[in-house]
Amino acid sequence: MAEPVTVSVDRLMALSNAALAAVGVPPDDALAVTRVLVEADMMGIATHGVIRLTPYTTRVRLGGVKARPRVAVETRAPSLAMVDGDNGLGPVIGTRALAGAMEMAAATGIAYVGCRNSNHFGAMMPYARIACDAGYVMIAATNAGPTMPPWGGAEAKIGNNPLCVAAPMPDGPHFILDMAMSVAARGKIRIAERNKTPIPEGWAVDKHGRPTTDAAEAMRGFLVPFGGHKGSGLSMAVDILAGVIAGAGFLTGIASWTEQPKEPQRAGHFFLLIDPERLVGAGAFAGSMARFRDSVRSTRPADPASPVLLPGQREQERRRAALTGGVAVPADLLAEVEALAR
Amino acid sequence: MAEPVTVSVDRLMALSNAALAAVGVPPDDALAVTRVLVEADMMGIATHGVIRLTPYTTRVRLGGVKARPRVAVETRAPSLAMVDGDNGLGPVIGTRALAGAMEMAAATGIAYVGCRNSNHFGAMMPYARIACDAGYVMIAATNAGPTMPPWGGAEAKIGNNPLCVAAPMPDGPHFILDMAMSVAARGKIRIAERNKTPIPEGWAVDKHGRPTTDAAEAMRGFLVPFGGHKGSGLSMAVDILAGVIAGAGFLTGIASWTEQPKEPQRAGHFFLLIDPERLVGAGAFAGSMARFRDSVRSTRPADPASPVLLPGQREQERRRAALTGGVAVPADLLAEVEALAR
Repeated sequence: MAEPVTVSVDRLMALSNAALAAVGVPPDDALAVTRVLVEADMMGIATHGVIRLTPYTTRVRLGGVKARPRVAVETRAPSLAMVDGDNGLGPVIGTRALAGAMEMAAATGIAYVGCRNSNHFGAMMPYARIACDAGYVMIAATNAGPTMPPWGGAEAKIGNNPLCVAAPMPDGPHFILDMAMSVAARGKIRIAERNKTPIPEGWAVDKHGRPTTDAAEAMRGFLVPFGGHKGSGLSMAVDILAGVIAGAGFLTGIASWTEQPKEPQRAGHFFLLIDPERLVGAGAFAGSMARFRDSVRSTRPADPASPVLLPGQREQERRRAALTGGVAVPADLLAEVEALAR
Repeated sequence: MAEPVTVSVDRLMALSNAALAAVGVPPDDALAVTRVLVEADMMGIATHGVIRLTPYTTRVRLGGVKARPRVAVETRAPSLAMVDGDNGLGPVIGTRALAGAMEMAAATGIAYVGCRNSNHFGAMMPYARIACDAGYVMIAATNAGPTMPPWGGAEAKIGNNPLCVAAPMPDGPHFILDMAMSVAARGKIRIAERNKTPIPEGWAVDKHGRPTTDAAEAMRGFLVPFGGHKGSGLSMAVDILAGVIAGAGFLTGIASWTEQPKEPQRAGHFFLLIDPERLVGAGAFAGSMARFRDSVRSTRPADPASPVLLPGQREQERRRAALTGGVAVPADLLAEVEALAR
């Protein structure tokens, strides 16, 4: 891997906006995508940061994703809506869906918004931070192209389908769990392939189903679901919630993001928001969350040097540091983004 | 373990109803509890079947659970409600909450109902079957007394907090995923302790945090979260959704079901229902679910003798067989239930 260089958030955002403008994405949509990608880099989720600009813009140039989609929100009931993404960039569709969900939840206390005709929509933690800042508990997820066999199978049918559960913390990092259903994210294997480094045992099997530590072989094979049948079952559950009931593609109906760049991906997502203050009252909710946090973080650690953390805590601490200190980006990746922006 | 004997569903239900009546539980409430327990036995979930009658009735006799609670449903918004269980038996409260959620979802297409002041409410698959038969997609969960350390900790703070995601299948077993956050359910270790058989490696650690295969040592130690930090994070997520925002106990605020039988458990649950037909239409939904099922079940199996199954399929097939063929119950357990029923 090339040495990392530190870039300010403003500069990285300007580069990302320019890279997207260069393929015809309108300014507001470019900003929505940029926010999701750069926030991921700020949080240290490098697999979902500006490294995605090359595949995003390549897809737009090849016609696999529309630069100027007509994203349509279809309200089905006061707390139910569907978003037809018209094959736009995922973060444009996800950002619109989350905004719609927040509007509905403000009125009714709860909202489900499903998205269809969408594409890779980035990491979920940036969306979760917005929902939590506005006071909502969020369950959200996306499906993804098939990379794993269902439990007991020898054929890729299910995606790693990340699930996010988030809850606002009164002052300090929110509770944000964002987990994919594979032992490791495909993006981490992609980075290992790029850097020509081996991957740990147990992350993946090759195309014949044999365990491998070769990142390139793993990219041609399957991811392994975490927890065996549990991760496999949870991946299918997400596919129903984000795909089937959102009217989107599911299972093998979702095109591969990497291998079919000219194809609409037909991915689905959903955002489910609940206003906790309507249930238990503002004061009680904030008090309970603070006690929850303090109890978890004060757990006697197995290793005295490693205190127990809440999910998403480290990522949000990194984000805060990046606001003033900038983001570390590998030099070759920065050069790539600069080239896209020209 | 004593040899199993086969009992008809009707007889097992009558025995269970009588056992609950013997400690003062009114007939309707007894029937709600009986249905949840006997359905679990029918499904082969022996850990959550009539084996629970002894702790349930013991708690009632000791005053740890009320035989005649005043369960109150508090509507907060057209799609949001809270149930105060008044420290009744969990299945009484869960059954009432699910019925309330179905009423609200029938009107609005979505509902969240949180339960507080509750106790162990049995397996979730029986509730899921009711919700799916009525056409709803369900996300539900319960929290439980602390049995695991959060990831990186050496002190029990989180429960195994099972999560259920279910979706109706047009004709045939519904999709029902019901998974606890530990590698193995505590009930399975309890049965091994009862039968004096060892448990597999990786299920639990002893009270010093050392791996053990001794079921009795494991019962005095901790369960291990599945998938490491992922299972730990998901357990906390469930605790927020079923405990914090339901106004119930959470983390160490939940009394141990087994070790503090005189204490209200203060457990929380939630049922979240979505009407998928409002989103995508009845025909499209049924068609998509059938394609989902057929695609998963036709996956080339790793072992040709073991076809790929959907979550909950085997349990629902067992249930169907039990309707005519009865339920196999260990002879000593049946004797125990018969004694409670006298």
